[in-house]
Amino acid sequence: MPANIRNIGIVTCSTRSTRVNPYITQHIHALLAAMVHDVPGLQDATLSIIDLEAQGLPLFDEPAVPAGLPAADPTPHYQQAHTRRWSAVVGAHDAFVFVTPQYNWSVPASLKNALDYLYHEWAGKPAAVVAYGSRGGGRAAAHLQQILTGLKIQVAATVVPLVVIMGDVDECLAQGALSQDVLQRWASADVPETLRSAAEEMGAQ
Amino acid sequence: MPANIRNIGIVTCSTRSTRVNPYITQHIHALLAAMVHDVPGLQDATLSIIDLEAQGLPLFDEPAVPAGLPAADPTPHYQQAHTRRWSAVVGAHDAFVFVTPQYNWSVPASLKNALDYLYHEWAGKPAAVVAYGSRGGGRAAAHLQQILTGLKIQVAATVVPLVVIMGDVDECLAQGALSQDVLQRWASADVPETLRSAAEEMGAQ
Repeated sequence: MPANIRNIGIVTCSTRSTRVNPYITQHIHALLAAMVHDVPGLQDATLSIIDLEAQGLPLFDEPAVPAGLPAADPTPHYQQAHTRRWSAVVGAHDAFVFVTPQYNWSVPASLKNALDYLYHEWAGKPAAVVAYGSRGGGRAAAHLQQILTGLKIQVAATVVPLVVIMGDVDECLAQGALSQDVLQRWASADVPETLRSAAEEMGAQ
Repeated sequence: MPANIRNIGIVTCSTRSTRVNPYITQHIHALLAAMVHDVPGLQDATLSIIDLEAQGLPLFDEPAVPAGLPAADPTPHYQQAHTRRWSAVVGAHDAFVFVTPQYNWSVPASLKNALDYLYHEWAGKPAAVVAYGSRGGGRAAAHLQQILTGLKIQVAATVVPLVVIMGDVDECLAQGALSQDVLQRWASADVPETLRSAAEEMGAQ
């Protein structure tokens, strides 16, 4: 039975000052917006972008283990205001698309940190992984899929890999936009079709 | 040909306020101190503890990619004082034993963050992984081995897994020490022998 997903959060996972992650997230948002209306389980979905940079989370500083808090309403039980705010953001979404860079063969600390802050807010929800790197970010994607499974997230098996080389980064930062070459490369690598497969898996959870 | 390792840093990887990591690090330090004198390549080694909490690293905030800095002396090229301090600490050690908890099937963000801050300071050095969790932290260890390999660290294949259940944590925090039960359990699970194998691999790099 397809889920009835209403709020999908597309997560910008890097929090560096110099980053192309917001541009890539915007592109994934545009691709998803053009397809969700005819993906079973996602027809009623609203897409929003969750930028981890805007959440202002420091390195994990809650005294309690998140999994040990009351499952029905953990939000008021956190000690820190930034955690309560983050809990409310994640709690208000039904599904997630993580758009992550690969750092040193895994996910950035900013993403692992944001995930570790919560538990019940994630559990049982569908998600998909979009990863980017000079070879497509496959190692980060594999780690992230395992981490999300550990958090009881229903993660799509299909990963969307995006090849982003250093020259693409420099050009994007200089132009303030992803180049047509990059977008064409991704289109030729079937990125929209792969993203649709991942979205269909999310809708079928 | 065995390395001539002089300074081994035993890294306490969790930075939470409520944590058993320092106690476990201390135990690993004691076990290693009793054996390095007869491990080829490590006979001259001095052991010191590097507590990531004391490094005060915020989430990665350097503008440059660490791998792009001058390999021979990257330290002065970082913009932040905390990064220059951390670069000097890691640069002054020849090998590392990472003592890490498992959070959500992977390493804590505090460890990934500390690793991602640097590159040339890690490259080519031997390391070993000690992981703990309710089932021994094996998933965190596997992720960490891959991340360290990505950083060109020569990581020992042998992992030291430590079973630590929630009751052990509560008891350790209440008593200010690991219980004799826990230490006996690890001894029965051949932890000293496994640690020696990992140390021998480090010495043989």
